[in-house]
Amino acid sequence: MSADPSSLSNHRIDIGRLMARIEELGRIGALEGGGVCRLALTDEDRRGRDRVVRWMRDLGLEISIDRIGNVIGLRPGSEEGPAVTIGSHIDTVATGGLYDGNLGVLAGLEVITVLNEAGIKTRRPLAVGFFTNEEGARFQPDMLGSGVHQGALDLDEMLSVKSIDGTRLGDDLHAIGYAGDTDVGDFQVHSYVELHVEQGPLLEEEGVTIGAVTGVQGISWTEYRVGGVSNHAGTAPMRLRHDAGYTAAAIAVEARALAAEFGGDQVATVGVSELQPNLVNVIANQALLTLDLRNTDDESLTRAEARMADFISAAATREGVEVQSRTLARFAPVAFAPQMVDKIEATAEALGYSVRRMPSGAGHDAQMFAPNCPTAMIFVPSRHGISHNVEEYTDPADIRAGADVLLQTVLNLAV
Amino acid sequence: MSADPSSLSNHRIDIGRLMARIEELGRIGALEGGGVCRLALTDEDRRGRDRVVRWMRDLGLEISIDRIGNVIGLRPGSEEGPAVTIGSHIDTVATGGLYDGNLGVLAGLEVITVLNEAGIKTRRPLAVGFFTNEEGARFQPDMLGSGVHQGALDLDEMLSVKSIDGTRLGDDLHAIGYAGDTDVGDFQVHSYVELHVEQGPLLEEEGVTIGAVTGVQGISWTEYRVGGVSNHAGTAPMRLRHDAGYTAAAIAVEARALAAEFGGDQVATVGVSELQPNLVNVIANQALLTLDLRNTDDESLTRAEARMADFISAAATREGVEVQSRTLARFAPVAFAPQMVDKIEATAEALGYSVRRMPSGAGHDAQMFAPNCPTAMIFVPSRHGISHNVEEYTDPADIRAGADVLLQTVLNLAV
Repeated sequence: MSADPSSLSNHRIDIGRLMARIEELGRIGALEGGGVCRLALTDEDRRGRDRVVRWMRDLGLEISIDRIGNVIGLRPGSEEGPAVTIGSHIDTVATGGLYDGNLGVLAGLEVITVLNEAGIKTRRPLAVGFFTNEEGARFQPDMLGSGVHQGALDLDEMLSVKSIDGTRLGDDLHAIGYAGDTDVGDFQVHSYVELHVEQGPLLEEEGVTIGAVTGVQGISWTEYRVGGVSNHAGTAPMRLRHDAGYTAAAIAVEARALAAEFGGDQVATVGVSELQPNLVNVIANQALLTLDLRNTDDESLTRAEARMADFISAAATREGVEVQSRTLARFAPVAFAPQMVDKIEATAEALGYSVRRMPSGAGHDAQMFAPNCPTAMIFVPSRHGISHNVEEYTDPADIRAGADVLLQTVLNLAV
Repeated sequence: MSADPSSLSNHRIDIGRLMARIEELGRIGALEGGGVCRLALTDEDRRGRDRVVRWMRDLGLEISIDRIGNVIGLRPGSEEGPAVTIGSHIDTVATGGLYDGNLGVLAGLEVITVLNEAGIKTRRPLAVGFFTNEEGARFQPDMLGSGVHQGALDLDEMLSVKSIDGTRLGDDLHAIGYAGDTDVGDFQVHSYVELHVEQGPLLEEEGVTIGAVTGVQGISWTEYRVGGVSNHAGTAPMRLRHDAGYTAAAIAVEARALAAEFGGDQVATVGVSELQPNLVNVIANQALLTLDLRNTDDESLTRAEARMADFISAAATREGVEVQSRTLARFAPVAFAPQMVDKIEATAEALGYSVRRMPSGAGHDAQMFAPNCPTAMIFVPSRHGISHNVEEYTDPADIRAGADVLLQTVLNLAV
């Protein structure tokens, strides 16, 4: 039968079936004591890909693999044209959980399964895809496959990227059998929807089930190397010190003050701090630190960067140290199309779930699609906000809610 | 001839002879590009000891080696009794200079040489000693030999101390032939005088030649382990963070503020700071840091410790992190006898040298003697305040001045 819009809103996903697939995929690269390690383009990734591809074939999807290893399973519609696409990734960090990325892909397969069983044929084609090296744990940059797919990254350049093991990405694709022959521009996307765990604590804390993601925060990563003068902690008077460690500490304290002053979505983190010679009784002559600034508003993010640069310059002069800075990453904020955010919100409400609009603090494949097609993300709660960690967990009831929002959103886009 | 006090003040040391000995000893364990490495009880230390002992014998001194390896060369006086003792050490740190320790011992030999050549017999015996493992670079604690000598450390316990190479101190003493049979309490000290390079910048900066050392700063070393919660630098809102790295930075900034507020001799240094997992986009769940506080006044030092403890406790509560502290070292300040400080000052002035009173920021063998006998230290300038470094340097003119003050001080005590 073909799609009857009036009855479609009654369809629901099967949480047992979805959880079974999540658990089965999680056994590939499983870590002792929980969690999973399927670093991009390793043998574990190959085994994970093979499993998902087998499920795709079993569901009757037409598989294409492009030259950067992205895998798309297509379900034709009653009309030709660009596909309503559900996507995410199945690579993980070294101490990954079962949900990050995998949920979005496997919920996509569950959507297809529901439609197959109900015999629903959509007007537009539907697709489920997983994209190469979203995590950036084994190859830099992250969101590599979706970035190439959407033209933000150059194919040949990315094929030459080296892994942390020293291997070339293109060679690793061949080695695991995922160097496809589909050109990356061939597959046309009508719209893109990604279900993902929040990886933060807000939904849990506020007791809200669904996050309607408004966009992805802009990210500014800077590395600072502070050069001071090593000296004896007992004999060097305070007024004659050029303490690289003190300057590093002052930067970290200022970053916190900046976040408090800016408020809103502004976050600021000094996650790396190392001193040389790192001895109890020696004033540090070198400090290495990183500053991670994020904001959903690009103007605010730029202002935060300028404010920290001013502070660091003044602090260096006061202490008589040299500070060299290097930009490690800079992404402008991404805003998802307002009508897509509205659609997620309305769908969640129609299904009876509590919902809030929220930005994503982490990067996702969806942000690569957002400039080119209507894009949406659906967040479900992460217990204690924990992710990139074997303790990552989302309640099956929340997974069911998120997958049902995904199903209804996709149906709405595709019929 | 015996001592004629009225003519003694005309005697001067021979700077050429003293520098030749400093340079000759510096060739044992010499590092490429300058400096020296004679870690305690290594073969280099043995060779250095053998050289100094040969010089002592050539000068007619009666050698005794005690059970912790301290070596004393005695020049009898016209009367029996405790000896006026010149001492320091000849072990070095791994990247040591030519002067730290060595200067005090070799200036002592130069004093003996002058007296021998002039045929001066003092009333009291004179002695020159060097003490085992002053640096604490290969065995902990530092000032080990002088500490045992003066009863502050237990002989048997110290013989069992393990080196950084895993060997036992007592075994290493045997291996290099310096496990002596003199009981450590046998040698009686009338008074103790140590000439040393400042290892700080004050004398050079003020253009003063001689430091009359008033005592040694009290030292308080504390290690802190901060336990927070690791989280995503993008998705964790500021108000929900438990950032071990931020707390560590706040402690370092507070330490600086405390030193400024206390003023005077108070110094405060955070020399060690390490984060876990130390990643740009992850809030640190662990921080390790050390705090080095020093003050010449024990009441002030205790107040500084309490002030930091209060701050850290409040900061931990505010951030929701746990802080565990461990005392790594705590030495009360040592004050040298006022009449000894006066004597150094008067002697320097009588010789026409500029002199200032000053505390020592570093530990020295002298502080082990100070509780038990009149003790003095003479400082000469360190270029740029640099020590424990191959760049350590003191101008020969300053060495001559310091050695002449040593000679006259010792004569004054011994005749």
